[in-house]
Amino acid sequence: MTTLAHIDGLVAPRSVAVIGASDDVTRIGGRPIAAMLRAGYAGRILPVNPRREMVQGLPCYASVDDLPEAPDAALIAVPAKLVPETLAALGRKGCKVATLFSAGFAEVGAEGEAAQHALIDMARENGIRLLGPNTLGVYNVDIGYYGTFSSSLDTGLPKPGNIGIASQSGAFGAHLGALARDRGLGSSILITTGNEADITVADAIHWMAECETIDVICTYMEAINQAPALLAALDEARAAGKPVLALKSGRSAVGARAAASHTASLTGDAIVADAVLADHGAIILRDPETMMDIAYAASKRVFPAQHSLGIVTVSGGAGIVASDEAERIGLPIPTMPEAAQAALKAVLPYASPVNPLDCTAQALNDPSLLEQFTRAGLEDGGYGAILCFLTYVAGSRSMSDVILQALAPLREAFPDRIIAICALGEGEVLRRYDDAGLLVFNDPCRAVRALDAVLRLGAARGQAAAPLPEVTPVGLPTGTPDEAASKALLAHAGIAAAPECGVQDVEAAIEAAEGFGYPVVMKILSPDILHKSDIGAVKLNIRDAKGVRAVYAAILAAAAEHAPHAVVNGVLVAKQLSGGVECLMGINRDPTFGPVAVFGLGGIFVEVLNDVAVRACPFGPETAREMILSIRGAAILQGVRGQPPADIDALAQMLSRLSVFAAGAGERLVSIDLNPVLAMPVGQGACALDAIIELEPAEAMTDAD
Amino acid sequence: MTTLAHIDGLVAPRSVAVIGASDDVTRIGGRPIAAMLRAGYAGRILPVNPRREMVQGLPCYASVDDLPEAPDAALIAVPAKLVPETLAALGRKGCKVATLFSAGFAEVGAEGEAAQHALIDMARENGIRLLGPNTLGVYNVDIGYYGTFSSSLDTGLPKPGNIGIASQSGAFGAHLGALARDRGLGSSILITTGNEADITVADAIHWMAECETIDVICTYMEAINQAPALLAALDEARAAGKPVLALKSGRSAVGARAAASHTASLTGDAIVADAVLADHGAIILRDPETMMDIAYAASKRVFPAQHSLGIVTVSGGAGIVASDEAERIGLPIPTMPEAAQAALKAVLPYASPVNPLDCTAQALNDPSLLEQFTRAGLEDGGYGAILCFLTYVAGSRSMSDVILQALAPLREAFPDRIIAICALGEGEVLRRYDDAGLLVFNDPCRAVRALDAVLRLGAARGQAAAPLPEVTPVGLPTGTPDEAASKALLAHAGIAAAPECGVQDVEAAIEAAEGFGYPVVMKILSPDILHKSDIGAVKLNIRDAKGVRAVYAAILAAAAEHAPHAVVNGVLVAKQLSGGVECLMGINRDPTFGPVAVFGLGGIFVEVLNDVAVRACPFGPETAREMILSIRGAAILQGVRGQPPADIDALAQMLSRLSVFAAGAGERLVSIDLNPVLAMPVGQGACALDAIIELEPAEAMTDAD
Repeated sequence: MTTLAHIDGLVAPRSVAVIGASDDVTRIGGRPIAAMLRAGYAGRILPVNPRREMVQGLPCYASVDDLPEAPDAALIAVPAKLVPETLAALGRKGCKVATLFSAGFAEVGAEGEAAQHALIDMARENGIRLLGPNTLGVYNVDIGYYGTFSSSLDTGLPKPGNIGIASQSGAFGAHLGALARDRGLGSSILITTGNEADITVADAIHWMAECETIDVICTYMEAINQAPALLAALDEARAAGKPVLALKSGRSAVGARAAASHTASLTGDAIVADAVLADHGAIILRDPETMMDIAYAASKRVFPAQHSLGIVTVSGGAGIVASDEAERIGLPIPTMPEAAQAALKAVLPYASPVNPLDCTAQALNDPSLLEQFTRAGLEDGGYGAILCFLTYVAGSRSMSDVILQALAPLREAFPDRIIAICALGEGEVLRRYDDAGLLVFNDPCRAVRALDAVLRLGAARGQAAAPLPEVTPVGLPTGTPDEAASKALLAHAGIAAAPECGVQDVEAAIEAAEGFGYPVVMKILSPDILHKSDIGAVKLNIRDAKGVRAVYAAILAAAAEHAPHAVVNGVLVAKQLSGGVECLMGINRDPTFGPVAVFGLGGIFVEVLNDVAVRACPFGPETAREMILSIRGAAILQGVRGQPPADIDALAQMLSRLSVFAAGAGERLVSIDLNPVLAMPVGQGACALDAIIELEPAEAMTDAD
Repeated sequence: MTTLAHIDGLVAPRSVAVIGASDDVTRIGGRPIAAMLRAGYAGRILPVNPRREMVQGLPCYASVDDLPEAPDAALIAVPAKLVPETLAALGRKGCKVATLFSAGFAEVGAEGEAAQHALIDMARENGIRLLGPNTLGVYNVDIGYYGTFSSSLDTGLPKPGNIGIASQSGAFGAHLGALARDRGLGSSILITTGNEADITVADAIHWMAECETIDVICTYMEAINQAPALLAALDEARAAGKPVLALKSGRSAVGARAAASHTASLTGDAIVADAVLADHGAIILRDPETMMDIAYAASKRVFPAQHSLGIVTVSGGAGIVASDEAERIGLPIPTMPEAAQAALKAVLPYASPVNPLDCTAQALNDPSLLEQFTRAGLEDGGYGAILCFLTYVAGSRSMSDVILQALAPLREAFPDRIIAICALGEGEVLRRYDDAGLLVFNDPCRAVRALDAVLRLGAARGQAAAPLPEVTPVGLPTGTPDEAASKALLAHAGIAAAPECGVQDVEAAIEAAEGFGYPVVMKILSPDILHKSDIGAVKLNIRDAKGVRAVYAAILAAAAEHAPHAVVNGVLVAKQLSGGVECLMGINRDPTFGPVAVFGLGGIFVEVLNDVAVRACPFGPETAREMILSIRGAAILQGVRGQPPADIDALAQMLSRLSVFAAGAGERLVSIDLNPVLAMPVGQGACALDAIIELEPAEAMTDAD
């Protein structure tokens, strides 16, 4: 990871050299200087251009070597072919970090990628950390620093404030910045990382997590280039109490991916990334507007401990619409205590003070009603947030006095709670509420979604992080294990299979079957046949010795016919269990995040609905339990249609152990499929009926090491 | 249904009497007059107040009887107790329609409801149609008519335009009006219907469907008080080519409803209402903001025939975010033809012109790129709409000239297609695009959702409505039929059951079983035992005559034990089918919409996921097929895991016939449960394995008729 000192130089330089400085304020080498002059940059601007003595009124230097000092940062706005010598000169001069605006590198194909690699080598040799190439740069409103050529500045400078933006895409990052500005939100820092040849969004997030003036971090990512650093940065931000709002694009590809029966296909990159980032505290979003809504709500730095909403409304209809949205997204709207309802009814007999608390249009005539209903919601309802639907009423200047008089004191009396209003009107009037510490939204449903996010953050703060289980290295066989060997490996890790026994002759098979009791299941035992049922080498419902005999012969014949070259280690005889719920557990090695565990219900839930929970390994049983209960079909495990509830504790234990096993197994582990896992009724445990462990050959890994 | 002439008087009166007129412009009797004076109402305002000679500068009349003419409309702003005599006087005077602002009627309980009924009777006696009570009234911007006391007018009058709003809730309707105004959208008509004692949103929608100046209708409903009139109004609007955007609140109650095994529980009121309204062409929404986004897009009256989107972007990132959203909601983003891609590549080698068409930031230097990429999307891509992501670039005044020069001619060259831009900036600059016929959105994802809605409307216009099947009255037995009788009734309607036979003794049972071939199913045959398996009176997998004997005795014993008073008509022996997909079909009588058909997959899909399609009866097989394919689990019917696809045609035929049967059965039909229905592989049909028909007793209906 880049040391933060380098990012300090990048984001808050005391001096900046602009290599390729231009008088033309529409050019890449001219825009940053113009913006800094306009904003009154507190540091020194050092233009470099051999053909000018002055640039935009500033003394210009002929070369980097001629600079009077080592600049904290450099902006490189010269043609690509001049970049190498520029980097060398900056290195000689002692500059430690440079922003490379130029495009035409990795983003245009293999040749550009090679050029980018060469560039990075050169930067390293010269002791320079690099932002870009193909970046729109950085700004830092607080010191008037604009190391960017974004044309978003043409329509106004950003407003200073505690929202930071870290984006791989320059244009999209600048869009977020402009969106914040247009909404009147303060966002002091924008860092766009472009091709991320060196410095990444992870570095930017890490820096913002430690930056005193930033409280909320918005990030946009297309690819994750430094997963461990990114997760560490998210952890850092979480530890600092700073929400990270993440928009990770590129979901469509996942949808297009063809379905297949292997675990790998269940965990599209985007799903895994979402799960892992969320696990490290990030809020995953899909659109910039919702991101700004939540950033706005979070920027007030009030994170109530209660994940609950009270709705105070002058319109019954709006209360219902907001409630519907809250229910849809899982934000509780608990009813008011009976006594509190009675008290409000005494004040306003026609009110419906259940929650939503409808104080009716009467509140327009008697604004003390608004105060009383809101106070009751905070005091008696104990809600984390109150949303007051005041619509155009709040937009009237005269009413705004009255409303502020009612609500502002409550804001102060309940500093750990949120009071939001849904209001329409001119910006100037609405800003008065915002200045008083109230949150202001136009749309009731957007308000509900933003409040939900902030309330979830608050509720999560109260919870201790689940401890990570200890991982010890797992010894793996050199070759791919057959089913019995796979199950033995897993048994060692505490993961149970159905009672079973590998046998090499039919008499032993009968003996095993009679030991378990009928019915039994029989399967071919071969490391070379992964999908046994496809070739008819799995038989169920074998009810007597005669059946065992017939099936034994049939399975070997099927194997001989369909997989003549497979090594056959015999036949597996297993007790046939029934009465449980079929689940699926698996591990898949994600190229970015390493081993990822997947849980789903068997059959259609996974294959048709893609109803799975995923999580990076390892994790403890509590996390596993959360995963299990998070799938849409979880009710099936909790018992439906008179079926007994399944042993979710045992499932969770098993899933956690599987994650620990996978984390300990190292990079040779490609995947594990436990399909099905039978979850028996509560108290009776869970066991895998089949197990496939796929490994890289031991030799291949030796080569790679 | 109210005749439209009455609504003409209500919405576009040439004269209006204000009963209880006030000089105080903050009072209910003062606000309407003040607003009309401010807006320059084209008609005559006739204040009535016995204690004033002048009101707000207008001559005031002591009583209704003193009025110099029969007013087209009357606004009643007097205390509730004076309402009866006011209505009588208005009737004498010849006024045909009155708006009753007063609250305190049906919305406050039984007493108020009785008062409301009395009121309506009186209005009818006096030949007056009534809006309200408890309504905020009506406005009509085009003629400056403000028959409303909404304080939304305090912050400005609405902008005239072709969006109409019909809302049961006054405050919520006015919120929509203010939202439109704050966004600069023209919305000339607001009708709020309050308690709907007489005039309903159905009347309002119907009137707007025929109103020449309204092109888009937004409606907010909490309850549906006149279902047939509402559906007729929606049909009217559809025939007139006017989209109806509907927000029906009150979903939360559905979520809270306890699940049960009966069909009725699967069709919450909100789900049924959504399905029925959508079936009549309404676009169902959940939040006011999306409603206004779509109203804005639709207000341009361009409804392309192609449901496809081209995205032209200066930021790869934004293109991906917009694509992700389009994929999420099912808006196709087809790729460009190869040749067109090559042509664009020739213009800009680093472009990615697949779709999204990324013309890169280079388009800022060379705006002809924007023109070329957009034109290619329209011409070669043939997309119904193009969304250009231009963000803050479009907000700069100088760039807006250039962008308009590029896009406005395309708008004219492709009048049947939509060009939208995603732009940030000041309203004044953005309005220039809007004036040129481009759609302007801040957020790319909101743009995608609004465009999708309008494109779907356009695509639907090209499709002929599915013809409704003919319904003939169905003869029903007087009592509740047992399973065999139910199946016989359905068989008459063309709905097949599994081969089966009701028997009265065990020898006949064996004969029947051997006729069908083993295995067979046996069940008790009794009209009094609806849930047979609950008492052990259904047995599967009977494999021989011995089994039939044992089961026959066991079933009769179970019935005798658990339902000693039930009439037992014998035992049903049926061929046990297998190899199909278990589905569920049913009919439930909705209190608002009459018989509603439900389709889902058997078991957990319905019970855990509530994955069902619902539709009002009757409908044809094409509609039934759409329903079947609309459920999330539809892939199971299309064949997964190597299973053959199910006979969806036969299922659709069966579902349609069931709907026709239900429509013909009349009001005595309470419900039908066909559960399971077995859908066999393609070409092998579908049949009901169980059937329960619940009827109201014949006598009860006679009383009610």
